[in-house]
Parts: sequence; C-alpha cells; structure tokens
Amino acid sequence: MSGNRAVAYKEPGVVEIIDTDYPTFELKDGPGVNPANVGRKVPHGAILRTVTTNICGSDQHMVRGRTTAPQNLVLGHEITGEVVEVGPDVEFIKVGDIVSVPFNISCGRCRNCKEQKTGICLNVNPDRPGSAYGYVDMGGWVGGQAEYVLVPYADWNLLRFPDRDQALEKIMDLTMLSDIFPTGFHGAVTAGVGVGSTVYVAGAGPVGIAAAVGAQLLGAAVVIVGDMNEDRLAQARSFGCETVNVSKGDPKDQIGQILGVPEVDCGVDAVGFEARGHGKDASHEAPATVLNSLMDITAAGGALGIPGLYVTGDPGGIDDAAKHGSLSLSLGTGWAKSLSFTTGQCPVMKYNRQLMMAILHDKVQIAKAVNATAIPLEDAPRGYAEFDAGAATKFVLNPNGYVKS
Amino acid sequence: MSGNRAVAYKEPGVVEIIDTDYPTFELKDGPGVNPANVGRKVPHGAILRTVTTNICGSDQHMVRGRTTAPQNLVLGHEITGEVVEVGPDVEFIKVGDIVSVPFNISCGRCRNCKEQKTGICLNVNPDRPGSAYGYVDMGGWVGGQAEYVLVPYADWNLLRFPDRDQALEKIMDLTMLSDIFPTGFHGAVTAGVGVGSTVYVAGAGPVGIAAAVGAQLLGAAVVIVGDMNEDRLAQARSFGCETVNVSKGDPKDQIGQILGVPEVDCGVDAVGFEARGHGKDASHEAPATVLNSLMDITAAGGALGIPGLYVTGDPGGIDDAAKHGSLSLSLGTGWAKSLSFTTGQCPVMKYNRQLMMAILHDKVQIAKAVNATAIPLEDAPRGYAEFDAGAATKFVLNPNGYVKS
Amino acid sequence: MSGNRAVAYKEPGVVEIIDTDYPTFELKDGPGVNPANVGRKVPHGAILRTVTTNICGSDQHMVRGRTTAPQNLVLGHEITGEVVEVGPDVEFIKVGDIVSVPFNISCGRCRNCKEQKTGICLNVNPDRPGSAYGYVDMGGWVGGQAEYVLVPYADWNLLRFPDRDQALEKIMDLTMLSDIFPTGFHGAVTAGVGVGSTVYVAGAGPVGIAAAVGAQLLGAAVVIVGDMNEDRLAQARSFGCETVNVSKGDPKDQIGQILGVPEVDCGVDAVGFEARGHGKDASHEAPATVLNSLMDITAAGGALGIPGLYVTGDPGGIDDAAKHGSLSLSLGTGWAKSLSFTTGQCPVMKYNRQLMMAILHDKVQIAKAVNATAIPLEDAPRGYAEFDAGAATKFVLNPNGYVKS
Amino acid sequence: MSGNRAVAYKEPGVVEIIDTDYPTFELKDGPGVNPANVGRKVPHGAILRTVTTNICGSDQHMVRGRTTAPQNLVLGHEITGEVVEVGPDVEFIKVGDIVSVPFNISCGRCRNCKEQKTGICLNVNPDRPGSAYGYVDMGGWVGGQAEYVLVPYADWNLLRFPDRDQALEKIMDLTMLSDIFPTGFHGAVTAGVGVGSTVYVAGAGPVGIAAAVGAQLLGAAVVIVGDMNEDRLAQARSFGCETVNVSKGDPKDQIGQILGVPEVDCGVDAVGFEARGHGKDASHEAPATVLNSLMDITAAGGALGIPGLYVTGDPGGIDDAAKHGSLSLSLGTGWAKSLSFTTGQCPVMKYNRQLMMAILHDKVQIAKAVNATAIPLEDAPRGYAEFDAGAATKFVLNPNGYVKS
Repeated sequence: MSGNRAVAYKEPGVVEIIDTDYPTFELKDGPGVNPANVGRKVPHGAILRTVTTNICGSDQHMVRGRTTAPQNLVLGHEITGEVVEVGPDVEFIKVGDIVSVPFNISCGRCRNCKEQKTGICLNVNPDRPGSAYGYVDMGGWVGGQAEYVLVPYADWNLLRFPDRDQALEKIMDLTMLSDIFPTGFHGAVTAGVGVGSTVYVAGAGPVGIAAAVGAQLLGAAVVIVGDMNEDRLAQARSFGCETVNVSKGDPKDQIGQILGVPEVDCGVDAVGFEARGHGKDASHEAPATVLNSLMDITAAGGALGIPGLYVTGDPGGIDDAAKHGSLSLSLGTGWAKSLSFTTGQCPVMKYNRQLMMAILHDKVQIAKAVNATAIPLEDAPRGYAEFDAGAATKFVLNPNGYVKS
Repeated sequence: MSGNRAVAYKEPGVVEIIDTDYPTFELKDGPGVNPANVGRKVPHGAILRTVTTNICGSDQHMVRGRTTAPQNLVLGHEITGEVVEVGPDVEFIKVGDIVSVPFNISCGRCRNCKEQKTGICLNVNPDRPGSAYGYVDMGGWVGGQAEYVLVPYADWNLLRFPDRDQALEKIMDLTMLSDIFPTGFHGAVTAGVGVGSTVYVAGAGPVGIAAAVGAQLLGAAVVIVGDMNEDRLAQARSFGCETVNVSKGDPKDQIGQILGVPEVDCGVDAVGFEARGHGKDASHEAPATVLNSLMDITAAGGALGIPGLYVTGDPGGIDDAAKHGSLSLSLGTGWAKSLSFTTGQCPVMKYNRQLMMAILHDKVQIAKAVNATAIPLEDAPRGYAEFDAGAATKFVLNPNGYVKS
Repeated sequence: MSGNRAVAYKEPGVVEIIDTDYPTFELKDGPGVNPANVGRKVPHGAILRTVTTNICGSDQHMVRGRTTAPQNLVLGHEITGEVVEVGPDVEFIKVGDIVSVPFNISCGRCRNCKEQKTGICLNVNPDRPGSAYGYVDMGGWVGGQAEYVLVPYADWNLLRFPDRDQALEKIMDLTMLSDIFPTGFHGAVTAGVGVGSTVYVAGAGPVGIAAAVGAQLLGAAVVIVGDMNEDRLAQARSFGCETVNVSKGDPKDQIGQILGVPEVDCGVDAVGFEARGHGKDASHEAPATVLNSLMDITAAGGALGIPGLYVTGDPGGIDDAAKHGSLSLSLGTGWAKSLSFTTGQCPVMKYNRQLMMAILHDKVQIAKAVNATAIPLEDAPRGYAEFDAGAATKFVLNPNGYVKS
Repeated sequence: MSGNRAVAYKEPGVVEIIDTDYPTFELKDGPGVNPANVGRKVPHGAILRTVTTNICGSDQHMVRGRTTAPQNLVLGHEITGEVVEVGPDVEFIKVGDIVSVPFNISCGRCRNCKEQKTGICLNVNPDRPGSAYGYVDMGGWVGGQAEYVLVPYADWNLLRFPDRDQALEKIMDLTMLSDIFPTGFHGAVTAGVGVGSTVYVAGAGPVGIAAAVGAQLLGAAVVIVGDMNEDRLAQARSFGCETVNVSKGDPKDQIGQILGVPEVDCGVDAVGFEARGHGKDASHEAPATVLNSLMDITAAGGALGIPGLYVTGDPGGIDDAAKHGSLSLSLGTGWAKSLSFTTGQCPVMKYNRQLMMAILHDKVQIAKAVNATAIPLEDAPRGYAEFDAGAATKFVLNPNGYVKS
C-alpha cells in the first residue's frame, strides 16, 4: 500500500498516468497546493480505494490550457470509493463502506455548510469560499483520478450507499452522484423546473444530459436540448428529449417549431464560458452566446439555471474582456422579462442523497443517458482525447477493477 | 366633469400641464397608445379622481430623452385615487373608495396574474408581457399625473384602504404603495434580506431609500446605502442607515470600515442603466458599474435584487453596446461566488397589502424616509426639474387638493 | 336549449336523474342555495355543455347521509365542458372552448385568490371562505352532473385546453383536472414529496391513487398505498406502487418489510373522517385512525398532506366528539417528531395548468391509474352504488356523448 | 478544576444545588443517562465555563413532576459559556471563545443535520431523534445549570460571538439565543408571520414573549398576546403588543375588539400541554384549549406555529387520553379553513446566527422584553419557585460571576 498511480496534467493537451504517493492524513506540498494548506492535518479524513472516478468537462478547461493549472496537478473530482482507512476523528464512516464523494470539499462546521451551501465552504480553501479535488486554485486537495485518494471531513462529506452489493451493481449510475447528476439537477432546479414545465437545456455534454434527465425527473412536460454535436443530440433523443442543432441557426425558431411557441418556461446553461456562436457563427467562440440566447428564449417570469462554468480569468479568452471574465450581456432583455439567474457550483450534498434514492429504486437511468463507459485508469489519456473531440460518452475510470465488464 | 388636466412630456427636459379628456371606459387613440389597444373596451374599469400621484425616477428616463416617448404622452404611474365611477362589470369596488393603484397594469385572468406575476401580465400590452400607466411602449394606458384617470380591471387591480379618514390622514405614506415602496421592498426581498442580514443598497434615490426601509422592515441588522449625492445620503442616515459616498472611491473599502468585513449578505441595485462610475470615474456614465460592484461586494452565496431599470434600447447610451442594452458584466466573479440575481418590475400586488398594513399600524414611516413633499399639479415641471437635479425629495402631486398642508 | 337533466340527491342512499332548468346568468333559489346568494347576477359567467363530470368520493359523504344535504340538491363538482354561452363581462373565454372547471369556485378578485388560495375564496360563499358546485353548505352553486352548468367568473376559473381535438382525445385524463388529480397532487406536494422521497398514501380510492400518481410525477423513489380493499390495492400496484392491506394489521410493520425501515419521509391522508380502524379494528369506523397512524409512520422531520376531508359536524359520527368534528389525536407523537400538517381543499388552480401539460405531453396516465370508466348520465345511480360498494373505478358521466366508446 | 456545582432535580417541586463532577471528554453514567450513551467518547467536545444559563419553562414540566425525570438529574439546556478546554478533534473553536450553545444537541454529520433539522439529529440520542442537555429521555447529556458543562461536536454546535467584550456587554440578550429567542422566533416563522401580518400568541411566558418579539422583528403589523397572568401581559404591553386576558373569556371576542375582525393571519401556541381553559374554565387544565382556540382564531389560509411542548406521555394528565398524549382536537374546523400546523423543537442553529446579528446591531431588546434577571447559581431554587408562581421574569443563572450587576 505504499504507492499510488494517478492521472496528472502535464501541459496543454497532455495528461499522463504518474506514480505518486499513497495518501496520508495530512495535506502535503505538491503541484497546485495552496501554501496555507501545506501541512494541514486531516484526522477527520478517510482514505478511499477508488471504485470509479469520472472525467469531467470542467477538467477539460484545464487540459485545454484555459487555466493556470500547474504541471503534474493530479486531476479528478468525481470520485466513488471504498473506505480503506479512517482518521482518528472519524466516528460514523467505517472501513469497507462504499461511498460517493461530493466534488465540493466542505468542512461541515462553517456558516455556509450549515446553510447547505457546501459549494462555498469557508474553511477548505485559503483563497476563497469553495473547493474541489484536483482542481486549479481550489486549495490544493489532491485529485481522485487515482488508485487512492484522501477525503477530509469524512463523516460530513461522504454519502454511504446502504448496501455494498447493490452499490457495485448500480455503480455506473451511482458514480454520477459525485458531480454531474447533482450538477445537472441543480441546473434544472434553479431554472425553476417543476411538473409540467417546458425546458431548454443549452449543451448536450454530460452535464447538459444530466440536466435534461433531472428535468424529466422533476416532471417536465417537454425537455429540449441544444448542441451542435449530432452524436450528443442523438444521445439526448435516446431518452425522450427533443433536440435543436444550434449550428443550423437560432434555437428560438426551432423551439417554436417543437412547442408551437418560441419560448420555454425554464432555461439551463450547461455550456459555460467556452461557448461558441449559433448558426453561421458556430465555428468560433462567443462566450456570451448561451446566456444571451437563454434570455431571449426563456419566457417572461422564467428562470435561468447556470451550472455551466464562468471564470474570473481565462488566458485563452477571445478578447480582453473575456480574458478577465467579462461578458457582454443583454441584461435589458432579461430585465424586461423579469428573469432570475442562479450561478455557481452545485452544492452536491443538497441533492446526492435523494438522487441516490431515485437510482437505487430504478426511477432514473443516468448512466445510460450519458452513455457511461468504463475504461482502465491507464486509458485516461485516450478518454480525455475522445471526450475533448466530442464523443457522446461519459468516461468512467476504473482504477481498481471494481467495475466488471 | 367634462375636462381633465394632466402632466405631459413635450420634449427632452420639458414637461407641461395640458388640458386633456376626461376618461371614458374605452382606451382611445393618443400619444403612445398601441394601435392594437385603440378602441379597447374597459367595462371592468374604474375612473378615479386622483388623490395623489408621484413623480418617479423612471419618468425621468423619458423626460431626459433616454427613450422613444412621444410628444404629449401623459405621464404618471404612481396613483392613489378616489373612485368616482365604475364600469358595469365592476362588482366589489365602490364609488367613494380610496384606493391605491399598482403601477403594473394587470388583467387578473392570465397565467402570470394567477401566479402573482402581475408585472408581466399577458393581456394588457399587445407588444410584450407587462404594462404601466403613462409609460412609453407599455401599451398606451393613459398616465395618472392628472385630475382623473381610468384604471382597468378595477376589482383586481385596486387596493382599497379600509377607512377613508385614516387613509387621508396617512396619505403621504400610502401614496408610496403604488410603486416605490413595493419596488424597493421587492429589491430587498429578492436580495434575500431577512432578520439579521447585512445589506448594501446602491442608490439613495426614492427607490433606494424604499429598499433600505424595506430591508429594515425585514429585520436587517445593518443597511448601508451608497450614492454620490450627499443630500440623499443624509436622508438615508436620517432613519438609521449607514452610508457610503461612492464618488470617494470603491464602496468595498468603505463597507469594510463599517462592518469589519468588506462584504454584505445582500445587494440591491436601485440605480439601473444610467449608473455612473465610482471614485474618479464618478463624473461619467458607466452602466455596468453598479452590477459589477455588487458582485464584488456581495458575499458568496448571496443574492442581488435588481429593481433598477435596465432597458433593451437606449438612444442616449454611451456606446453601441449600451445603445442596445448590453452591459459588460464580470459574470465570472458572480459565478465563483454562487450569486443569484433577480431582475424586473416589482409585481406590486404581491406586496402592497402587507405594506399597507405596516403603514396603517405605524410600523414604518416611508413618507418621512423619502422626504415626501406635496406640490400642486401645476408645479409638476418644477418637481421634475428639482428631482432631476438631485433633490433628496419625493414629489407628490396633489391635483385635487386632498392633501392638506 | 330550454331544458336540462341532472343528478340529484334524494335521500340517504338514493340519487336520481331529474329534469331541471337550463342555467341562466343568475343564481336562482333552489335546494341548498344560500339565501344571500339568491338572485346573484353572474354576467362574468359561462354556460357549459358538459363534456364529462365525475362522481367523487366527497359526493358519497352526502349520499350516505353523513351531511345535511337537502333533497333535490343537484350534485357534481368535477366538470369539464364546452363553452356554449358567455356572459357580457367575459373577455377571454370563447364559445367553443373546451375547458376544465376547478371544483373550487373563486372570484379572482379577493385577497385569497390573489395569493393562489382559491380553495378559500372570500366572495363566493356567504357563510365562510370556500365554495364548490353542487355541495352542501358551499353557497348553493348548482352542481355539474348535468347536461349544462353555469360557471361564474369564467375568465378566472376556466382552464382552456389549447386544442379541441387533442382535448377530446385525452378527455378521460383531462377530466381528472377538475378535482382528484390536483387534489391528490396537492396531498403529495404538501407532504413534502420530492425526488427520491419515500411516501405512504393512506387510501386507494381515486384521490389516494391520484396522490400516488402525483408522488411518482414528483420523483418519489417508493410509493406505498394502504387500503383494505384488495381491488383498489391491485389498481395501485398496476402502475408501480407498493401496497399494504391495513385490514391485516398496522401498516408500520408492512412498511418495514417493504423499505427495511418502518418509516417514510412523507405521509398523505386520502381517507378523511370516515376512516376505519386497522387490523382487527378494520370493521368499524375510527375517525382518528389514519392521522394517528401517519404520525407514527412518518419519520421525524416529515410532513403530512391531508387532502382527505374532515368536517365540522357529522350527524353520523360514532360518538359525540365525532359528531362535532373532534378527533382524539396523538399530537405528542407528532410534536416529538417535529412533524408538520397541511389540511384543506386543494386550490386546484395552483396545479391544474401544469398537470394539464403533463397529460398533454404524455408524462402521466391518470385515467388508467384510477381506472376511469365513462357511463351515461342516466347510469349515475349505478355509478354511485358501485363506487360506494368499493369498485376500483372512477366513474365519469358522459351526459352529451362527447366521450366515444 | 476538580469540582463542579449544579442545579439538580430532587423531587416534585424541589431543586437543589449539588456538588458534582467537573466534565471530561466522555459521557459517564449518572441520573438519566441512556445506557447506550454511557462511555461515549467526546473528543469533538468542548468544556465551557458557564457564563449564563437560564431557567426554562420546559424545565418546569420536570420540576412539577409531570415527567419521569430521575432524582439528581442535573438540569439546564440554555447555556452560554466561555470555552476552557477543547477535545483533540476540535479545529475551529478556541479556548477563550464566548459561545452560545443551542439547546438541541446535534452531530453535524447525519441526514437531518445536513438539512438544518438539528432538533431531530439522528446520532445523539439512542432512543429517538433529538436531544437536549439536562432533560429527561433526551439521551442523558448533563445539564448546564452548573459552573462547567461539556458540549459535544463543538465545532458544529457552538455559535461564537465575534467580540468578547461586546458579548459580555450584551450578555443578557445573547443568553436568550440558546433557546427561547430562536424558539419563539421559530414559532412566528412557522406561523407564517411576515411584514404586515396580524398575529396572536397564546402564552405570555418567556417563549410567548420571544415569539411576540420575533413577530415584531419579522415586520408584523399587530401582535396580540394572550395569557391569564396580568404581570406577564403587562410585560407584553411594555414593548408594544396588544394583550388579551383569556381568563375573561374567549380570546376571539377580544381580538375582534382590537382588530375589527375576530381573526388573525398567524397563530402561535407558546403554552403547550399544560394549558388551562378560557373564561370560566381558566381555573383548570384543559390541554386542547389552546390549539382549538387557535384554529378558531386563525383566518382561513393561515398557519399555526406550535413551539409549545406536547408530550407522548404525561403522568399528571387530566384523564387517560392526556396521560397518553392524546388531545381532542377540532380538526374539522382547521380543515375547513385550510390551516397548516408546524410542531416540534426549534432547530436553534437555523436561527441563532441571524438573531445574534440583530442583537449585536441593536435591532431588538429581547432581555428587556422578557424581563431577564440575573441571579446567583445558589438562588436557582428561588428562581424556579418564583417562575413557577408566575413571575413575569426570565431568570438567568450567573454561576461564575460573568454578569455584573
């Protein structure tokens, strides 16, 4: 047990499997670790043998070189594991538990955690509220695309699955609880989706698909998904969504053809700051496109859920404004329609238990919807590459062979 | 009863008192009346003899020439009146009732009205959801800065005061129920203000002051108001607010000095699209200043209430983007802090009854807070001019002498 | 058009089809009409030719003689119709529209209507807040188990189906929008049902079944329905519910076997005051049984939705307390578990539009779930008798032949 | 530091100051300690030197012999203290902090804690959800009417005051944060109190007074307090409440005289199971009186907040039903009015931070409102006796001399 292997970011476009340290109950120095966190004791932590760990679209921002992620940063914030060690302060989580790890690291002691705002915990990232495993500027907690990973505040953070065998049987669904299923669901919830709603989801990547699945679970009458990738749109249609190919023009017209009216009740932005234009502008980046389109498409009185990531700085931004995280938004349109907007990381813990229940009782097939595909840890570079190229696939790394083919 | 006198917009910077028609139960053609509304029958309406009618900051946008308002448009959407005639379909409102008129015109029959979203009624403005009296592009309902005014859907729209004498005694407070008190309160509510909150209100005009009063009524621990007009800041201090002069620099620092931390729980934008810069930029218009500042000032997990008006087109905008209602917003900052945003007209009917109760039972002194001052209808031009010049005064027109000095 | 035929209550256990008057735009004297409502003008009303009108469990309370319903009261509050005449004040509803009528009559002008509390409208029943068609002590509005019926405040009350042909095709589902589908859904909503919830619904009659369907639509993980009628339990199982036969003992034990824990997150009382005991006590009435059982079964922190009817007086009550509407409730149990309780008529208008959307977009099959069965108006006596005998059927009267076999 | 002195229950009507053990980081056997909790390790705990600890009305239930409290049970769940020792797992709370202790003990790790339902924590009481210090059947955590007390899960449970000097200056207000101020506030919140509400609070003891203060803080237009103790009613009037003496008859009539209508929007039960009758029945216990009265008094569509304690068993109950915690409730009345009901312990942590902010910024004077009076620990027997006799006083024990006269 003295070693570990993990997926590390090397340079733009390149990830590699590296040998690294087996975790201990202390946060050590390393690539991306916030100096103020170096040496932090973690007696409240648990060490997990990774059951599954997924490649996320937000990892791609780093791998594409759109952030300041340092070389050798160990990636991975979508983690499901088996507890193999617990620190001395852990009381309820036990060795052998199969658990889901919310990608937001939170302390369970601060004001925000007490208010279920675990995406902006005040005690885990010395720089600002909010943290995550294996992510640039998020405090330096080591990523989980690895054989083993340390999870702090284990009694608070971990969601224990009630039955080991059942968990392993449904693991391809349950692995989505660490991030994308709650994140997409949060997008739908904050967009105001309820029974009978009409919904437009911008983006048919895994988060967009999860938002669409979440909207269906919330009782939406019609869910329309827009993208310019036909494979991903086909994936959305596979479970009953309507689709719009935004490379063919403004989604408003296509929505009008589907619904009879060119507006929806609820809009979800599952694209974020690397958005491209619509129609003839689809070939180049235009970061405000999705938000401006959603303000146009969403009916007066509606809401926009914005799980898609927007950043404060983007070295690869198309212009100076974009480089500083500024967008040219038609706020007047939104104001005239009395729209509301919810941004930010999903507070996973607010939703993961209820979504687990829906999975365990067969009310939802999220793995199938996102086309979850397990691959060995060693194949992570291929997974990153194919996902970046637009594969309609959610890659699930399987570092310890828990997932049987 | 065959005549009427009213305040009309003539040209940029000029309003005049004109002779006009006494209302009938039909919407006739005239300046700014939507063609599709010409000839609309209003058997459900009531004709009011105006008790009070206030000059509003949003009227100033028109008078300054920042809109496409036509010549001779009769102004006025803040109306309190005595019912002098009712149409044949009116069942519950009676002649002699003293009533407050929500500035949003709504039908009480459409989906949005049924959901309390009366600011975006679907049936009163042929162009888009939402309407108001005496306002450009809002359907053409004649304004109420006049001796008499027609109110459609009277049983639905009018808030009847329970006692005539009590109403006239408290009329300077009650007159604020038609717009600014609910509008400011809505700003506070949608900013998430509750017992113990810390709040920053951008703008110390009447809506900002009303937001501050509303925040206090909701139990806020500290309310800080920012502006660059010292008279208006003094007005805010008069009822217990802290203040920040934004011409002296970024409000963040001054907030830090007041609270010990440079952030508040809740932010209210009571300025809108004619915002000017902060500090050394205070002399020129910079429409995204307030929103970007609020994203900076509001703590992670907070909310922004945005009652300040943003428009879809502004002929006087500082640049092309502004002319089309686009703003350069640091959305990345807001996203990193998981902020939420609520825009749009206040749905007055959602709040006016409860705020009336607070006034009638002496829980709030809104008239004093906004320095309400009654002036004759004929003095409206002076009122507009002084208000535009920055007077820390809310002008209340008194066309029929109900307000005794 | 000078006549009408309707289902009338004659005496305990007996209903008959009678000849009666075609409606006019005035509420005339007749059996059960509140004297203060006699002569009330209804220019805002619409006359409907009944498309469908359902027999409801709450009608049975009257027919069983458990109320003070007068002889010849025309029954029926579950109404779907085609508009054949509109009063002079009606502006938006048109002749030819196919519409659903919320069983709650409401004015759309009072404080409660403005707050979406249409089940307790202040202006339609001179005796107390709240009203309904064809029901004892509800103001005297004539029932709709008839060929024609008058609906007041038509622009406010009626839900128009967007397409006539589609509406008639799905009429057996849409007919449930007037009462039981929203009522059951309201039970689920007020019980706090959300995605992933475990739910127990007491009662497998049509409202219980609708609550179960509603819970599924809201994303419940497990829905358990309890009753002592095996046919009705089979009906519940037909669409995926678990079931408990309460005649075999306390539902707690059976719930424990299903879930592994003897408690659910959410409890719905779809039985009301004519409840019988559990287990060996199942043969006799015990009106507090369901509520006490739900307090026992619902986990700490849960909520009880109580759409089942409880009355202020019951001539057939089992003892003096029951005759006066008092129940012996184990409130201490509920208090120790921090339970909350929501009672009362469902405010249908709050839900009917969204549930219509779910039906029109094939997200729910309520007709199949409740085993909706159309019968001619003349067969109403048989329908009442079979329903009272426990048929697992929702009888839909078809007075004008709109429903094709 | 080897000793401790505490208030202990001896027998009905008798409390005494006893010598007892200084706390350690382990829960030892003793009077009332749940066997399953004996030996429980508390490395996450903090030992406090008590700053203040209040006598609570719910202590009186034990002292009056209305529970099965064992002899020598150390009382006290309203605790404010200075941290003098922390266990090895405590990370954020520091020695020297002045802190408020929520009377609900909670773990900060279970599902309920994560949902802010700290009154029904699943991990602190082996018998059932929910726990408290020094209370019968609540797990056996030693009470805090003592010089020193152990608080488990200190990082989670303790609310740290930002400034020591300020805290000690306002200590008589801040001491109410451990229970009665949040409890009363919770009653107001769950009764639906908002800006402009009319409110009736049954009971003018400290919790009732706190509910009235809470209702004012939430913006209520009128707060009416009912009791039969004139001193307590005078206390309620001292800060602007209206009052009703229920010994003089049904509160409904007196409310009608105050408001002009005999109903309020919101009802709070701050009495609980030891209620007495109204009017001529005021001399004897009648446990359902308050709830039945509130159903009568609260307007249709309103809500009842029920912070008053109802128990599952009462050895001193007036009849068999009362002995088993059953009440004869006019639920039919409540149902006809669509009322909702919220019961249970206040989850203190949901409110204590915001109420602290209101105190620290001088928005509320809770100590003055409840007539808080500091007395030495040794005078606890006198405090209990006077409070039981109806003194309009909240007694605050001052075991270590922090409170200066």
